[in-house]
Amino acid sequence: MRVGIDAMGGDAPAQARVDGALAARDLLAEGDRIVLVGNSERLQPLLEASDPAWPETIDLRHASEEVGMQEPPVEALRSKPDSSMSVLTRMQRDGELDASISAGSTGAFVAASQMYLRRLRGVHRPGIAILTPTFHGPVAMCDVGANVNCRPSHLHQYALMSSLYIQMIAGIDSPRVGLLSVGEEEGKGNELTKRTLELLKCDPRVNFIGNVEGRDVFGGTCDVMVCDGFVGNVVLKLMEGMVQSVAMGLLEMLKAAMPAQEQTVQGAARSIISRYDFNDYGGAPLLGVNGIVIICHGASDNRGIKNAVRVALDLGKRQINEKIISMLSQE
Amino acid sequence: MRVGIDAMGGDAPAQARVDGALAARDLLAEGDRIVLVGNSERLQPLLEASDPAWPETIDLRHASEEVGMQEPPVEALRSKPDSSMSVLTRMQRDGELDASISAGSTGAFVAASQMYLRRLRGVHRPGIAILTPTFHGPVAMCDVGANVNCRPSHLHQYALMSSLYIQMIAGIDSPRVGLLSVGEEEGKGNELTKRTLELLKCDPRVNFIGNVEGRDVFGGTCDVMVCDGFVGNVVLKLMEGMVQSVAMGLLEMLKAAMPAQEQTVQGAARSIISRYDFNDYGGAPLLGVNGIVIICHGASDNRGIKNAVRVALDLGKRQINEKIISMLSQE
Repeated sequence: MRVGIDAMGGDAPAQARVDGALAARDLLAEGDRIVLVGNSERLQPLLEASDPAWPETIDLRHASEEVGMQEPPVEALRSKPDSSMSVLTRMQRDGELDASISAGSTGAFVAASQMYLRRLRGVHRPGIAILTPTFHGPVAMCDVGANVNCRPSHLHQYALMSSLYIQMIAGIDSPRVGLLSVGEEEGKGNELTKRTLELLKCDPRVNFIGNVEGRDVFGGTCDVMVCDGFVGNVVLKLMEGMVQSVAMGLLEMLKAAMPAQEQTVQGAARSIISRYDFNDYGGAPLLGVNGIVIICHGASDNRGIKNAVRVALDLGKRQINEKIISMLSQE
Repeated sequence: MRVGIDAMGGDAPAQARVDGALAARDLLAEGDRIVLVGNSERLQPLLEASDPAWPETIDLRHASEEVGMQEPPVEALRSKPDSSMSVLTRMQRDGELDASISAGSTGAFVAASQMYLRRLRGVHRPGIAILTPTFHGPVAMCDVGANVNCRPSHLHQYALMSSLYIQMIAGIDSPRVGLLSVGEEEGKGNELTKRTLELLKCDPRVNFIGNVEGRDVFGGTCDVMVCDGFVGNVVLKLMEGMVQSVAMGLLEMLKAAMPAQEQTVQGAARSIISRYDFNDYGGAPLLGVNGIVIICHGASDNRGIKNAVRVALDLGKRQINEKIISMLSQE
């Protein structure tokens, strides 16, 4: 597989993506290749400094422009046809790449992927599936931001696609699917979830356990949680803010209570925060587009990028998209 | 003021509400009175055991039925006209009470309040406003579950009503109002939030700071966060589950790392969990109904009930409903 990485997009400096690309070489099998896409004048010195022999193992593709993190996605893609993100996804469209990875603007990457790669046959709307680490194992949540105006049929497909995804990535057979709502009873929810529930209940391809609530993310009750992209994105960002807030609050208290143990306490706080560290999971696939597309957190470091390559290789070699098409054609 | 408490509803035993009612007598001024509503045969022995002189300070009103926590709200209210919840809200409608408090089924309590008390003049839909404790001070989030199919005008009114609420309860002048969405930029969001943003931007009565994200709950960026009841309820339950999960995880790690300090560590974990303890805040007002209605967490203990009485007295004496009517009439 040839895995392309957008070297420009992200909140971290380009060095993070360069180091991630170099580190990810460990993951490659015979015939696999990493391609860095971005401003070659800026990237060459970084590569040179890290590994002078880089041209033997990494391909560099020049792209003169770059989409900013805060730019309106569609306008940015239109006005910057030579942005690293557009070049990346066009290379994949043209068969030069088998997977694309970016830590740049999520909105722009989703738009570029849909624009150049199009949807898989039978898919209504692509959705981002993120793995949330919990003490009971990972939970795949989909969608977390690709589609903020969902229909029941979209959520239904998220259930199917995410089930395949977590099966492949975490080895969970017959993953339990919950529909995120405001109460477990069937009558609870809004119009969207009530109508989605009817679809999921009747589909033998989904191991549907019914409505679940916000607290169930951490309760070990389900392996897949389906929600619309607005709710999923709010939840995702809330979790990020909350882990920091709770762990840091506890840290302050303990440091005051036992100053001599500051090191141990700090280590534990760091460790708990890292359990929820997105870098360990390495990016979330955009399920339903015609190609492997991995969206990284804007602040991804080299580990985050390397792990995104791992996910891309894994999903590509296990042929997730072929399996999605085949599953959806059974309707 | 006469404050009525539903003694039957809730996940905790009735003793919790009885003890809460007895404890809340400390808060009463001359002329204030607490009324417990529920099965008097079951309640009398509990009151007797705690304070044999109870009839001098507490009124007991018999109600023969009780709405279960899992019953469909409207059906339960219809089939049980003598439920403690219905009796409570009817007493308030008839002028026998100035405030109602229940830890029973939120859906049923919201339905009973709307059925018997009706809405305040000018209010489109009542909303539940909950105070979320953070390290930067409390944030009022509205709605967290009364209204799962919101319109922009509903969210607009939640911004106005919650601003008054947090001003009264936390003394915050000109509270900063954020609209919960998936990005700070104006163009981000779903149809509901985009249209709500246009309303809030143009209203000089609201100190509107624009869109906020999930992580802003803990960031100290706003004092009021407005969202539809579906999103708010998911967020609320997620926070509950997450505090437990993060704090307990950290506790386990630290107990293993320094067994000698188990006491201190456990104390800190308990303390951090209690910072997020709903019992300290004592229930959330249902803003927009024609009366003071305080919704308690199902698991409320005696502190939770006592604090709910505090909130009821505070909002009643500061005439929140008169101020809501007056503010909405300025449109």
